[in-house]
Amino acid sequence: MTRNMLIGQSGGPTVAVNASLAGAIKRAMKHSEIDNIYGVCNGLEGLLNERIIDLRPQFRNVRDFQALEDTPAMALGSCRYKLPPQPHPVYGNILDIFHRYQIKYFFYIGGNDSMDTVMKLSDFFRECGEDIRCVGIPKTIDNDLPCTDHTPGFGSAARFIAFTVAEIACDSTVYDMPSISIVEIMGRNAGWLTASSALARREGCTAPHLVYLPEEPFDTDKFIGKLLDLRKNIKHIVVAVSEGIRYEDGQYISAAGEKTDVFGHRALAGVGKYLEQLVSERIGCKVRSVELSVLQRSATHLKSDTDILEACRIGAEAVSFAVKGETGVMAVFRRVSDEPYLVSYECADLHSIANQEKKAPREWINEDGCDVTEKMLTYLNPLIVDQQGLGIPAFFTLNADVNMVGGKK
Amino acid sequence: MTRNMLIGQSGGPTVAVNASLAGAIKRAMKHSEIDNIYGVCNGLEGLLNERIIDLRPQFRNVRDFQALEDTPAMALGSCRYKLPPQPHPVYGNILDIFHRYQIKYFFYIGGNDSMDTVMKLSDFFRECGEDIRCVGIPKTIDNDLPCTDHTPGFGSAARFIAFTVAEIACDSTVYDMPSISIVEIMGRNAGWLTASSALARREGCTAPHLVYLPEEPFDTDKFIGKLLDLRKNIKHIVVAVSEGIRYEDGQYISAAGEKTDVFGHRALAGVGKYLEQLVSERIGCKVRSVELSVLQRSATHLKSDTDILEACRIGAEAVSFAVKGETGVMAVFRRVSDEPYLVSYECADLHSIANQEKKAPREWINEDGCDVTEKMLTYLNPLIVDQQGLGIPAFFTLNADVNMVGGKK
Repeated sequence: MTRNMLIGQSGGPTVAVNASLAGAIKRAMKHSEIDNIYGVCNGLEGLLNERIIDLRPQFRNVRDFQALEDTPAMALGSCRYKLPPQPHPVYGNILDIFHRYQIKYFFYIGGNDSMDTVMKLSDFFRECGEDIRCVGIPKTIDNDLPCTDHTPGFGSAARFIAFTVAEIACDSTVYDMPSISIVEIMGRNAGWLTASSALARREGCTAPHLVYLPEEPFDTDKFIGKLLDLRKNIKHIVVAVSEGIRYEDGQYISAAGEKTDVFGHRALAGVGKYLEQLVSERIGCKVRSVELSVLQRSATHLKSDTDILEACRIGAEAVSFAVKGETGVMAVFRRVSDEPYLVSYECADLHSIANQEKKAPREWINEDGCDVTEKMLTYLNPLIVDQQGLGIPAFFTLNADVNMVGGKK
Repeated sequence: MTRNMLIGQSGGPTVAVNASLAGAIKRAMKHSEIDNIYGVCNGLEGLLNERIIDLRPQFRNVRDFQALEDTPAMALGSCRYKLPPQPHPVYGNILDIFHRYQIKYFFYIGGNDSMDTVMKLSDFFRECGEDIRCVGIPKTIDNDLPCTDHTPGFGSAARFIAFTVAEIACDSTVYDMPSISIVEIMGRNAGWLTASSALARREGCTAPHLVYLPEEPFDTDKFIGKLLDLRKNIKHIVVAVSEGIRYEDGQYISAAGEKTDVFGHRALAGVGKYLEQLVSERIGCKVRSVELSVLQRSATHLKSDTDILEACRIGAEAVSFAVKGETGVMAVFRRVSDEPYLVSYECADLHSIANQEKKAPREWINEDGCDVTEKMLTYLNPLIVDQQGLGIPAFFTLNADVNMVGGKK
């Protein structure tokens, strides 16, 4: 009897999710306990149509793996299929398919919803007395999976955000007229990505001046008050705002977010545009909003080397965990130290992970709810660096005050 | 009597406009004909308030220049001041200021409108019998200045667009469901930036599948027809569209573009969103739009090395042209050959440049007006490369057809 492995990808794309796939395949090739290495196209959706491909022939040398690691999005394709609760005939169908392809090891790279799938399958297989080992490999730019220090894909998205906010801040300074720039950042319930914008601050750059995470209620009057206050000293204000900010009563700030996806999540859009209009009406100054949009999860040209290396490694460790007998778990990072930055690779029970969201701790957000604290920056910084460090150059600033040769008195 | 130089920046920011400033200052330091090197903050607007600073003390070594070259936007600040036609008291005011600061050389880095300023000033000084030499240094991401092969700033913006469209295209393929992605790109009247999206095509990537420049009238029925046709063979379609596309009658596609700036240009927004809604209604498939927005002109992390080197050099050459006696001209690139790519640095009369726009030639757009031709790509390619070439990696593609091990018949 052959002992085959099946791996799939699910949920939204990231820059690092193919690195985890590459890591898992590489490691599987080293385990004699694994015979065929199969991939399933478009996750569970493809599985039910038996869209299963043989991966070994596609990786002949280290360059094939390198190319896969450098490719954003998902080489195997993804899905947003939600496994219904038991009992349901789909479980029997999946078991039949697993038997037919002699699958002993199943890996699923995904976020909260995908981990729900892995948990349900491993529970079902256990109940059937089947030794089919199911291990989740974390993946989400949102960094909102519990039981792990962070998630692969987050560091690269965060790096894109930090760079981009630094560049937008620089761009915003060119005209003499005071201005407010609002940058809308992904993150429905967890503010990790928006928090990363604070890494744009460095020598010569105080932006972003306000940072609003969805963890804290948003108050438009306080927001306008903060802006009026800042305007006394800062000519070009930059605000980083999560797409998911809500009023005290839980209502999203955006009026447009009424559509829901198959998981019942609201599809948000337009917080930035809404705040732009609000500022225009209430303050009346030059204001613009920028939505970073899909580039946050696909900008592989600004990937974090740390993120890609870790994504690759956690995919590999997940395979070894399964071979050692683990099932119903997700591979996780445990942070050993901040400086030097060190993580270990461990396992966590999926029942503590699936369908849950890890949000930013209250003490990592300032008292007014309009910025992050030093603790947040200490946490974020090592995740975002490339081999040369963070890499946002300190932009040049002319010292107009000291070197003024004229000027009307 | 001292012979001072004054340099300013004007119009919209680019990634390369500080490189031209750095080049001009460096070269000026080598010319004994130039005494003080002054910069004016916020262009003509700052000049009228005598916001003039001494630049020499701020550049002590090569690292200061390097930092300036690596900084996006405008270190001296910008303005959108439009010089009124003669006669007008402002001309006398400017001449007084030039006399007071003993300015003999005036350089203005900018686009079409800024060149209008340089032309008017040089005409005025000539009429007054003043030997004040005015030379324009080109700058615009739009690449729409006549008499020059291309403009500094364009190559970097184009590189950002090519990379980003490649990444968005990859991101768009993850779900099994057919999709249409619409990328909205800057360019009011000239389609050079939108054309650059075609450089995303390479091994394993046929996107963008449709490219619409403002040079050709846009027909919504033909557009929908093209999409329906493409859908027969392509699951994930990517469309690159200029913000400035218009119907046959000259009306902009966007309903939102009713605001105008001080130059009477329409402020456009929402073409992508409009087409997204149109496709949703007429085809009913999954569709999204992405606006590349301000990152096109500020993403210094994706700058083209060729662009930065040339921007620096043309700033330097402009200074030498003025010292040699030129005035009323703009420094321009003349392309000597495509392969190897070679340009020479020359001068062109501002009367042939100011207030004019260079658009893409008809033969560089395909017959149907929905793509660019090979000639366009030959022109664009050398402008966008960095020291290692274009640098968009060929993304990894799994060969699902050949290696399928299962699949319902």
